[in-house]
Amino acid sequence: MTVVSLPQQDWADALADLDDIEVVVWDMKDAPPRDDIELLVPPYMGNASRLARLADLPHLKAVQLATAGFEHALPYLPAGVALANGRGIHDTSTAELAVGLAIASQRGFPEAVRAQEQGDWLRMAGRPSLADRRALVIGYGSIGRAIVARLQVFEVECTVVASTARAGDDLVDAVHGIDELPGLLQEAEIVFLILPLTDATHHLVDEEFLAALPDDALLVNVARGGVVDTDALVRACAAGRVRAALDVTDPEPLPADHPLWTTRGVLITPHVGGATTAFTPRLIRLLRKEIPHFVATGSLRNVVAGD
Amino acid sequence: MTVVSLPQQDWADALADLDDIEVVVWDMKDAPPRDDIELLVPPYMGNASRLARLADLPHLKAVQLATAGFEHALPYLPAGVALANGRGIHDTSTAELAVGLAIASQRGFPEAVRAQEQGDWLRMAGRPSLADRRALVIGYGSIGRAIVARLQVFEVECTVVASTARAGDDLVDAVHGIDELPGLLQEAEIVFLILPLTDATHHLVDEEFLAALPDDALLVNVARGGVVDTDALVRACAAGRVRAALDVTDPEPLPADHPLWTTRGVLITPHVGGATTAFTPRLIRLLRKEIPHFVATGSLRNVVAGD
Repeated sequence: MTVVSLPQQDWADALADLDDIEVVVWDMKDAPPRDDIELLVPPYMGNASRLARLADLPHLKAVQLATAGFEHALPYLPAGVALANGRGIHDTSTAELAVGLAIASQRGFPEAVRAQEQGDWLRMAGRPSLADRRALVIGYGSIGRAIVARLQVFEVECTVVASTARAGDDLVDAVHGIDELPGLLQEAEIVFLILPLTDATHHLVDEEFLAALPDDALLVNVARGGVVDTDALVRACAAGRVRAALDVTDPEPLPADHPLWTTRGVLITPHVGGATTAFTPRLIRLLRKEIPHFVATGSLRNVVAGD
Repeated sequence: MTVVSLPQQDWADALADLDDIEVVVWDMKDAPPRDDIELLVPPYMGNASRLARLADLPHLKAVQLATAGFEHALPYLPAGVALANGRGIHDTSTAELAVGLAIASQRGFPEAVRAQEQGDWLRMAGRPSLADRRALVIGYGSIGRAIVARLQVFEVECTVVASTARAGDDLVDAVHGIDELPGLLQEAEIVFLILPLTDATHHLVDEEFLAALPDDALLVNVARGGVVDTDALVRACAAGRVRAALDVTDPEPLPADHPLWTTRGVLITPHVGGATTAFTPRLIRLLRKEIPHFVATGSLRNVVAGD
């Protein structure tokens, strides 16, 4: 029997019929309930520092995250333990939010909400639609692909960028390398950020990046706040050069007195990209595939570190 | 030469190369510039009463609207003149708005905008996504189809209703008749209204309709305000029974002191469904097909009245 630790009872219940495993429900707040855990799924939300308890599990072989991002877990990963991310779980919810934020900003929903508070039937005809825009999607993992699939139905012309150039797929003719960015920005009317936060991508969106965008371009960030130099973004938005729709910020949570809150052309949602009812059924589908695979082979399929 | 009246110079310029026509630019504010106009395109926006001048055109054969809705033109249509609507022109822009409104309401954008004004990082995880919802699309003309095409990419289960039942198409297995509505409402987590306003559809959404919906259902209206009994909707939203995202209202514009503005769970955009940059290129594409067709055959293809 492989001992698998899950952070909440309802997930355990949904996996109760899987063979050859023994499930422990442990939210990592207190000491481990037993020391023979081999596969662990940490809590979806909550303090990353709980992951320090991974060091207390001598038989741990692998950690399966429920998140797509994994940079928070790296400092706590014991030697020899594989870390897998929740690839695919968040595609639906995050891509939905990214496209929703783009429509909201293009079509003026924030202005409409504020006008609604005043009982003001705002004249706002003739705004630029999402349709017909040229979008640049930076990051072309599974969420990036989900964003492109949705954008194309909205008649958006998509160019995609990943860490290195590669051949296209059923959605795009080519995947550009991130080194090609300088030549792509001036045509990018809407930029979607959905790349991992790493040393290489920290502050990828800086003053120079923003200056290269066309006037009134929209930056949609559903990746991590640290990919953007917040001060540079505040300056570019305040100057009316670009707009932003952000589900993630740096710092996060954004302090009440931060200038980003009130900068013109900025729409902020409080990091809700993946956190919807779409999450749990897709997580359970992933665990129902990955746990038996781990039992059979000793490894997970979406390993991002510690391999 | 067929004399064609267009309401603005830029449209005339975009059609200047068409053969066998003479273009008159006339916005219908003053008397007609000549009396031999055979085909007329009225102004896109503006006072419907200008259409009274149609009676001053003895040679008029057809009116090509730039709008999808046409009920405003019926009272002014002279006997023997065909009225065609702008079928297809507004699909892209209106479907984009409808899906955007649904995402905004599901994911809490109005709450986020209001929290942003307070510098408040709202905890709003776990809301129902658009994905996995059961949607009922009432009205299955070309905009209804465009909405369904988009919803399906967002993993929404769509049931569609038209005035009479008919076979399905590449998007749906069946088109239900409006007489089947009572049996469909209790499963409808999100209702999209995109049907014409007629005597038969006036106040289709009334107290009984709303009472049949499941708790917390969302009503998205991108059709016409009169399809909904506004008083009944205010009551149902105020009671927390349903939510609404409305691009059209009755009355319209909504007076500053109308209770709908501040009813909880209501998001209002000021009738901007079709009024974006997506409009003009699609209008011109339609006119470049319909005008030569009229010259060749004496008729238009999207006739909705006066046939």
